[in-house]
Amino acid sequence: MKMHIGVLGPNTTTDEQYALGVKVGRRIAEAGAILFCGGLGGMMRAAAEGAKSAGGQAVGILPGGEKAEANEFIDLAIPSDLGAYRNALLVRSCDAVIAIHGAYGTLSEIAYALRLNIPIIGLHTWEVRRDGATDPGIRVAQTAEEAVRLAVEFASTSE
Amino acid sequence: MKMHIGVLGPNTTTDEQYALGVKVGRRIAEAGAILFCGGLGGMMRAAAEGAKSAGGQAVGILPGGEKAEANEFIDLAIPSDLGAYRNALLVRSCDAVIAIHGAYGTLSEIAYALRLNIPIIGLHTWEVRRDGATDPGIRVAQTAEEAVRLAVEFASTSE
Amino acid sequence: MKMHIGVLGPNTTTDEQYALGVKVGRRIAEAGAILFCGGLGGMMRAAAEGAKSAGGQAVGILPGGEKAEANEFIDLAIPSDLGAYRNALLVRSCDAVIAIHGAYGTLSEIAYALRLNIPIIGLHTWEVRRDGATDPGIRVAQTAEEAVRLAVEFASTSE
Amino acid sequence: MKMHIGVLGPNTTTDEQYALGVKVGRRIAEAGAILFCGGLGGMMRAAAEGAKSAGGQAVGILPGGEKAEANEFIDLAIPSDLGAYRNALLVRSCDAVIAIHGAYGTLSEIAYALRLNIPIIGLHTWEVRRDGATDPGIRVAQTAEEAVRLAVEFASTSE
Repeated sequence: MKMHIGVLGPNTTTDEQYALGVKVGRRIAEAGAILFCGGLGGMMRAAAEGAKSAGGQAVGILPGGEKAEANEFIDLAIPSDLGAYRNALLVRSCDAVIAIHGAYGTLSEIAYALRLNIPIIGLHTWEVRRDGATDPGIRVAQTAEEAVRLAVEFASTSE
Repeated sequence: MKMHIGVLGPNTTTDEQYALGVKVGRRIAEAGAILFCGGLGGMMRAAAEGAKSAGGQAVGILPGGEKAEANEFIDLAIPSDLGAYRNALLVRSCDAVIAIHGAYGTLSEIAYALRLNIPIIGLHTWEVRRDGATDPGIRVAQTAEEAVRLAVEFASTSE
Repeated sequence: MKMHIGVLGPNTTTDEQYALGVKVGRRIAEAGAILFCGGLGGMMRAAAEGAKSAGGQAVGILPGGEKAEANEFIDLAIPSDLGAYRNALLVRSCDAVIAIHGAYGTLSEIAYALRLNIPIIGLHTWEVRRDGATDPGIRVAQTAEEAVRLAVEFASTSE
Repeated sequence: MKMHIGVLGPNTTTDEQYALGVKVGRRIAEAGAILFCGGLGGMMRAAAEGAKSAGGQAVGILPGGEKAEANEFIDLAIPSDLGAYRNALLVRSCDAVIAIHGAYGTLSEIAYALRLNIPIIGLHTWEVRRDGATDPGIRVAQTAEEAVRLAVEFASTSE
């Protein structure tokens, strides 16, 4: 069965952030993995567009109950109707996840990945600290290439 | 986006029941729809095998947290880790569902389909009655062909 | 820890149905158990009113995210925001459940109780049949007294 | 209806951390609020013990399906069987939450509180940063007294 790599990120993006998301989605497809995301706009749409541009497959785990909520690059939409609980379902469905920028929704997904021991790569995203030190659970990447390379590597290792 | 048709049924089957599930899965793929099921054995495996035999796609919404639980005909597994709550997620993901035989798990899926107003076709499955009369919510089919024809018809109508 | 007995039923009731729900709620409190219900109107309100009238405690597992949705007899409201998934949470929280009349939501709760092996007593509610015979999983009661007596008995046995 | 204040924290604690949790639980009960927690050991037990010592009520939202998992200070246990999804249910059930120390499970609860706009007070717990700056969403307290005072204040404001 193919590897599932998730892209976590905000529902609205700047042009630069969107371009980064497209690059990450493209690399995921080129690596032979299926892209998982939240299925809506912004970074979720960017990653799906990238995956499709490389002939890959994009899955969207939607918070609402209607497939029609999915962006136009999603091949398979799961209309979970789970609301905020769907963030946990999205992360749970992946072998590794890449968080790109993002607000509190993305933070909740990062936290779930850490809690569920699913490899998490950060690209210009949240930093989490306790006892005065950065927690090493989020592996920090600087480029789309590095992020996907690390995601694939850690997903393979953790299986 | 393609139609999602779910097959609901027991985890263990007789040979005859299994053959019926294969037929239903095959017809679903021939109708151009994606097969959704619980991803495990018995009727779920039969329907996935049928869909694959006709070149279709089979999605499994798993109760546990490991993709490896899926049967070998599943193309895309969602390891939901939702336990019994996953029955509701499976039904929620579909445009129409077909229940074939089945025990209490299938009954809970039938009930969720009725509650969520998702068209439900019954093939040798549960009958639900109140006030001394059969509830008409489950549309009864006699053959695999009829079940898939009704599912496609009602799924189209309800969108 | 006290026994949890759930009352499952419709959101709107006739006066007669409401009176039956009050009786059942009252008997649950008199048996020293905590009443669990969906927290909204109709049969849920009736059972909560009955439990309060006998000095008992009423818990409401709400489908939405606001405590204010609860009816005025609920002591403790859980604003689950789980939508239709909350029916499974309600049943899961109980040691035994009593279904009184009810529509598809109640049927989904009955099915979950059967699936989770939680004792279920029926009072003028759904009948479920397969292979031409009534399934014996729902124990049928004729009066509020009998329903609560059976619920307490089976809840004790199953622990 | 009474205010629900949640205490989030680790399943194992040092003696000093445990003593802090007892103090917080006690203050919550003294403020007339119901204590919500995850129902298991460590900080969850400490807070429940504190609440009971002041005559208050302690609710435990359990990850598993058995009431018997709850610690001995829990008055009302909800055996959700939601696994990791239960962290979101716990936060959702509260008007305000206090995070004390904690590991990734606590971080996921903090993130859900931020995402759901539920007031969150931090006591020697996680710090979350983005774009090089600490996010102000977690209000930092130094003592049990201050934490509960802030939780009550913000819970009242947000209703």
